[in-house]
Amino acid sequence: MTTVDRPPYRIVGTRPIRHDGIDKVTGRAKYANDVQIPGHLHARFLRSPHAHARILSIDTSRAEALPGVFAVVTGKDFPEVSAVLREQTEGAMANMGLLSRHIMARDKAWFRGHAVAAVAADSPHRAEEALKLIEVRYELLPPVLDALEAMKPDAPIVIDGLVTNTSRTTRAGGILGPGEDGPQSNVATTFVMELGDLANGFEEADIILERDYHTTAAHQGYIEPQAATAFWSTDHQLTIWTSTQGPFAVRDNTAAILKLSPGQVKVVPAEIGGGFGAKLNITIEPVAALLAMKCGRPVKLAVSRLEVFEAMGPASPAYVHLRMGITNEGRITAADTRLIFEAGAIPGSPVPGAANCMFSPYNIANGRIEGIDVVVNKPKTLSYRAPGAPSGAYAVEQMLDEFAAMLGKDPIELRLLNAAHEGDRRINGVACGSMGFQETLEAAAATDHYRSPIEGPWRGRGVAAGFWGNATGPASVIAGLLPDGRVSYIEGSVDIGGTRTTAAMMFAEAVGMPVTDVRPSVADTDSIGFTSNTGGSSVTFKQGWAAYEAAQDLKRQLIERAAKTWDVPVDRVRYEAGVCTNLDDEAKTLTTNQIAARMNGTGGPIIGHATVVPRGVAGGFAVHIADVEVDPATGKVTLTRYSCVQDVGTAIHPGYVEGQMQGGAAQGIGWAINEEYVYNAEGRMENSSFLDYRMPTALDLPPIETHLVEVPNPGHPFGVRGVGEAAFVPPLPAMANAVAHALGTRMYDLPMSPRRVLEALARQ
Amino acid sequence: MTTVDRPPYRIVGTRPIRHDGIDKVTGRAKYANDVQIPGHLHARFLRSPHAHARILSIDTSRAEALPGVFAVVTGKDFPEVSAVLREQTEGAMANMGLLSRHIMARDKAWFRGHAVAAVAADSPHRAEEALKLIEVRYELLPPVLDALEAMKPDAPIVIDGLVTNTSRTTRAGGILGPGEDGPQSNVATTFVMELGDLANGFEEADIILERDYHTTAAHQGYIEPQAATAFWSTDHQLTIWTSTQGPFAVRDNTAAILKLSPGQVKVVPAEIGGGFGAKLNITIEPVAALLAMKCGRPVKLAVSRLEVFEAMGPASPAYVHLRMGITNEGRITAADTRLIFEAGAIPGSPVPGAANCMFSPYNIANGRIEGIDVVVNKPKTLSYRAPGAPSGAYAVEQMLDEFAAMLGKDPIELRLLNAAHEGDRRINGVACGSMGFQETLEAAAATDHYRSPIEGPWRGRGVAAGFWGNATGPASVIAGLLPDGRVSYIEGSVDIGGTRTTAAMMFAEAVGMPVTDVRPSVADTDSIGFTSNTGGSSVTFKQGWAAYEAAQDLKRQLIERAAKTWDVPVDRVRYEAGVCTNLDDEAKTLTTNQIAARMNGTGGPIIGHATVVPRGVAGGFAVHIADVEVDPATGKVTLTRYSCVQDVGTAIHPGYVEGQMQGGAAQGIGWAINEEYVYNAEGRMENSSFLDYRMPTALDLPPIETHLVEVPNPGHPFGVRGVGEAAFVPPLPAMANAVAHALGTRMYDLPMSPRRVLEALARQ
Repeated sequence: MTTVDRPPYRIVGTRPIRHDGIDKVTGRAKYANDVQIPGHLHARFLRSPHAHARILSIDTSRAEALPGVFAVVTGKDFPEVSAVLREQTEGAMANMGLLSRHIMARDKAWFRGHAVAAVAADSPHRAEEALKLIEVRYELLPPVLDALEAMKPDAPIVIDGLVTNTSRTTRAGGILGPGEDGPQSNVATTFVMELGDLANGFEEADIILERDYHTTAAHQGYIEPQAATAFWSTDHQLTIWTSTQGPFAVRDNTAAILKLSPGQVKVVPAEIGGGFGAKLNITIEPVAALLAMKCGRPVKLAVSRLEVFEAMGPASPAYVHLRMGITNEGRITAADTRLIFEAGAIPGSPVPGAANCMFSPYNIANGRIEGIDVVVNKPKTLSYRAPGAPSGAYAVEQMLDEFAAMLGKDPIELRLLNAAHEGDRRINGVACGSMGFQETLEAAAATDHYRSPIEGPWRGRGVAAGFWGNATGPASVIAGLLPDGRVSYIEGSVDIGGTRTTAAMMFAEAVGMPVTDVRPSVADTDSIGFTSNTGGSSVTFKQGWAAYEAAQDLKRQLIERAAKTWDVPVDRVRYEAGVCTNLDDEAKTLTTNQIAARMNGTGGPIIGHATVVPRGVAGGFAVHIADVEVDPATGKVTLTRYSCVQDVGTAIHPGYVEGQMQGGAAQGIGWAINEEYVYNAEGRMENSSFLDYRMPTALDLPPIETHLVEVPNPGHPFGVRGVGEAAFVPPLPAMANAVAHALGTRMYDLPMSPRRVLEALARQ
Repeated sequence: MTTVDRPPYRIVGTRPIRHDGIDKVTGRAKYANDVQIPGHLHARFLRSPHAHARILSIDTSRAEALPGVFAVVTGKDFPEVSAVLREQTEGAMANMGLLSRHIMARDKAWFRGHAVAAVAADSPHRAEEALKLIEVRYELLPPVLDALEAMKPDAPIVIDGLVTNTSRTTRAGGILGPGEDGPQSNVATTFVMELGDLANGFEEADIILERDYHTTAAHQGYIEPQAATAFWSTDHQLTIWTSTQGPFAVRDNTAAILKLSPGQVKVVPAEIGGGFGAKLNITIEPVAALLAMKCGRPVKLAVSRLEVFEAMGPASPAYVHLRMGITNEGRITAADTRLIFEAGAIPGSPVPGAANCMFSPYNIANGRIEGIDVVVNKPKTLSYRAPGAPSGAYAVEQMLDEFAAMLGKDPIELRLLNAAHEGDRRINGVACGSMGFQETLEAAAATDHYRSPIEGPWRGRGVAAGFWGNATGPASVIAGLLPDGRVSYIEGSVDIGGTRTTAAMMFAEAVGMPVTDVRPSVADTDSIGFTSNTGGSSVTFKQGWAAYEAAQDLKRQLIERAAKTWDVPVDRVRYEAGVCTNLDDEAKTLTTNQIAARMNGTGGPIIGHATVVPRGVAGGFAVHIADVEVDPATGKVTLTRYSCVQDVGTAIHPGYVEGQMQGGAAQGIGWAINEEYVYNAEGRMENSSFLDYRMPTALDLPPIETHLVEVPNPGHPFGVRGVGEAAFVPPLPAMANAVAHALGTRMYDLPMSPRRVLEALARQ
């Protein structure tokens, strides 16, 4: 571990047992499918068997007549929410009208698996039986399944009335309103970012490369399929229990889609069995709610793994066209790219994420980025860890590898030569903040792994870097002192990576109390102030700020109580590590426990509060090193050694940071060499199970080595920068570079599966 | 309604529908027995069949061996908690050692129904089967069932080692510690309060009366028997779901009895199906907890109605010896009383309540009150609405009735002549605060009821007054603004009388928003600051203060946001009824809804907090008028008309205030003419069901008329005084005076049941 300039902490940097550990390992933790509201019904979806079809009619009468069926909903039951692109209030998505139609089809089915109806019945079996009684008449339309095909002038139009938004912002597209006119397209958005003088930049270059890269769709691989239970009370209050990364987003967006007021909706977040970005927004919640509203009973809706694959949306496939110039000394002079991302059935791919991250590790004076968001007849793509960034890095980091080979330079040396530093301006116009990229590259070069030789036939080593900007947002905490000096610590962030414990650690550090005496829990949307999504690697950052502020509030109250007890002014009390000392008579002390035991006699409860919207976010950088061996007979790529080096700011709980790095690497390795969505010509996914969609298992991976580089973020009281997503950016190119070295030939598309490797060898 | 000096309110004084109304009437509200924790076991008690017995041995081995039995506990499983009387920390009862032994017997069974063991099994039937396999060997001891008997020198000693506490405080007694010595007794406590010169006072009197009065035990009549579910997690955290008036008391006292730290215990209060004081402290929770701790599974313990009667404790029976002197002009010159209250098996009757309240309506210069707390072989008595006060008033108000008749004075006129006023000193040494007794007496005299004649044989009218001091304590609120301008209002007080709505009303009044936009809920002990019991008529008072302070906090934040939006200092913003106005440009306004919709963009969540320990409590006074007709053939007393007149401070929700007055009257009427605990010589209750223990039904009562006298309490922002308990003080003497007038002879003990009335007539 490399540590730069860190104050002496008592708790930060240690590895306490997670507070929710016992609940999790004993099976006591409540996940969304464990929620049992008395008298709840079971709901099931009827989904389109066609990838593109006009819905002529839906007859639900026979299903509704089946005894035990309590409610059937179709698109007709949803209120009309405008799909015209408008400025939205915060928390709402750009286009609720299209999202509503994605959740439940109206005139058209946009993809195979698109929900066309849902049934609530007294048993799951009855609900399934009822689905068979629903008659849907479709008019089949030709599907378009690939972004490049969808951009052709004669391509079928996926969304009637969709027009391209060319506002140069990265906002997703909208559709024509009544009376509006314009050329319909599958291209929802195009945007351009520019810096410097591109032509001059390429003039200065000694070598120019131009390549096309392609990354496939990849599944987030969350263990727990989506599940939600809804109850509509006769006083018009909706309660939703769900598996989500954003209970407040579920509240606000469900309210928007059902035309309720957000105050009518309470969302109770369950423990979450994996999200990785796919549970940031609503998918099934409005349907559960609408069924519950129709029949007045609680309705549980849980989808199957098949539905997850067919309807819930993977990471976007992406086409990246990249042209870069470099001098013989190794200085990058120009970069020009066109990014085409598949959005799925409605606009909103993470193409902005790729655009903002792909060149960010480097100081490039002249650049241009064009982003294109394209709809196709597949489910809406969803976020997946550092959304967009891996596909961008896949292109840039491979091209740098080619440059290094052509210039005879060490790949880390080449990156050090071009590394951005604080104050450098990126192509998106943003100036770099605090960053530890140089330190991370130097640490990578110094690892035993990188200094060990790699020899022998069919073996190769790849290096790649990656960047993620990290996010922030509002965060709320209520920290109530208990009479024995412990603290009930209630926060608004759903815990997907151990953040209950990291928040408790930062609070304990700031107060000066044992971390085991902090009892963290996550509250529902009525019980805690607005807290933004658990996403963007924001939680430890923003909840850390909230923890710090709540601790100050608590300490202030402890000092006031001690001062009151001694009848001295507050500035005559010193607080240190759980002990108040009377500065007028230092023999007089009061511990937090003593104050807690008597608080009701000295002025009542002591509760620290904080609601923050912190600034000061800083990005994270990762450098990964991969060693592979390829079997030329089968084409199988075997990973033999893998190291992650990352600027983690301050590692609050190093064990969790290592876990994030290893998890990010494992997921990226799977995407690189195995994972893909295989569709047939009719748009049917042909590998929609975990048997056929092959994620890496423990047997596929060596121990993943981790090297934490701690360059504290000066914009945070504990120096936190997000760590969960930067770790997912380098694996695609690191693996591609390693395989290229092993094969002696380079593949420009994913996955590097045995069949593809054999094809590449045959081409060679 | 008589109203004195009230500001113009928008919401206070209206009658909105209660926020929890729909949940309650549709059966959705969750009571303690509705709690279903997955995998929970069912527990049952084994109880002593003897009122007084030494426990020689308990053999649980056969019960433990029964398949399906998971845990058996007896007194041996409880940790030893000292029963020596010591100063306790706040929130804890005076003698946790005795309370622990009352919850589960150790060496002796103190009453029939005393728990001696409990079993947790996979079904209620298996638990009951296991109870039969437990062998307990008892050595029978003679029981003592009456306080006067228990005070005799040769009476059996109920609690080994109990010594009388004569510290002149009202603190309940303790037992001898190791090595300590002293005379053992059933008298736990004696105390004396004195004012003026008693001998001189009686010298001044023209008439002196001296009488003995007796009130019987009375059941609180809560619909819902006690039920609790406990779960002990392997990380040593105890969660208890229970029906309670005091979740924080359950937390602190369960922790004390089980030698846990309070921070290890979380109490989740359910809706409560009636409490009336009987659910202020723990009864079964530590047993559920201990069973859960033994087997590591959730354990639900729900008692039957029989157990409620035999083991849960009624209001204390009381003997009151009273001597008062009065002048011919009607001025009371002296009062001397001795109060003997049955505490049940362990010390702690409400004799202090009687002492503090009985003379409080009147200004009496010379007085003496002796209080005696006596243990007997019956379950510990529990609080019942204005605990102790009805028995005291039963004596004083009857004697005043006799004085009035002897002096030829109107009973209300006599009381007006002696009415206490602000600043007068009571016999307990406390000076009277704000009080509306005179206004209440005048309002009673002016009622149509009082001015209507009552004529005919066997008819009579009785008037009586009553006082309750009301309580306060810490109260906490978290009021989070939702994005549509509604407010999630979370409080710590369990709602037994509609206090969710009264708190919401006061908050809405203070903020200037519709009460329907406030969504109140009650939180668990980890989720809200300490809030004292829902008892002592404290809730509307203290939660009203908290509501007021939280509203100020919220308004302050709204003003700050508006100021920030307009870029003006906060003192250039006026807030009024949900609208901020820019004083520099009055055309600029922002409503709360507008600020709420944009709050995350203007600085984050807006949450009003308050934790208060308010002073300013003021007592409440009630005057009741009862008309009865007695059937001389059967002895049956029929109530023909009943009116309640009460100083209610400000009636926040007049409908609930009327409900409290009517409920208090109905319960008191039942106690007066029907209710009693009938024990045989062995200490077995012979009427332990609602068939044999006769509470009044709707058919027994005429419509009860209510007259609200509003004398606002100057110590509260909305003038609140407690209203729930004062209403329960006058019914016993009002009914006794009415029956005395109807019969032409007076009964000095309760109940005035047909048999007793016939006996009184026979004596006459």
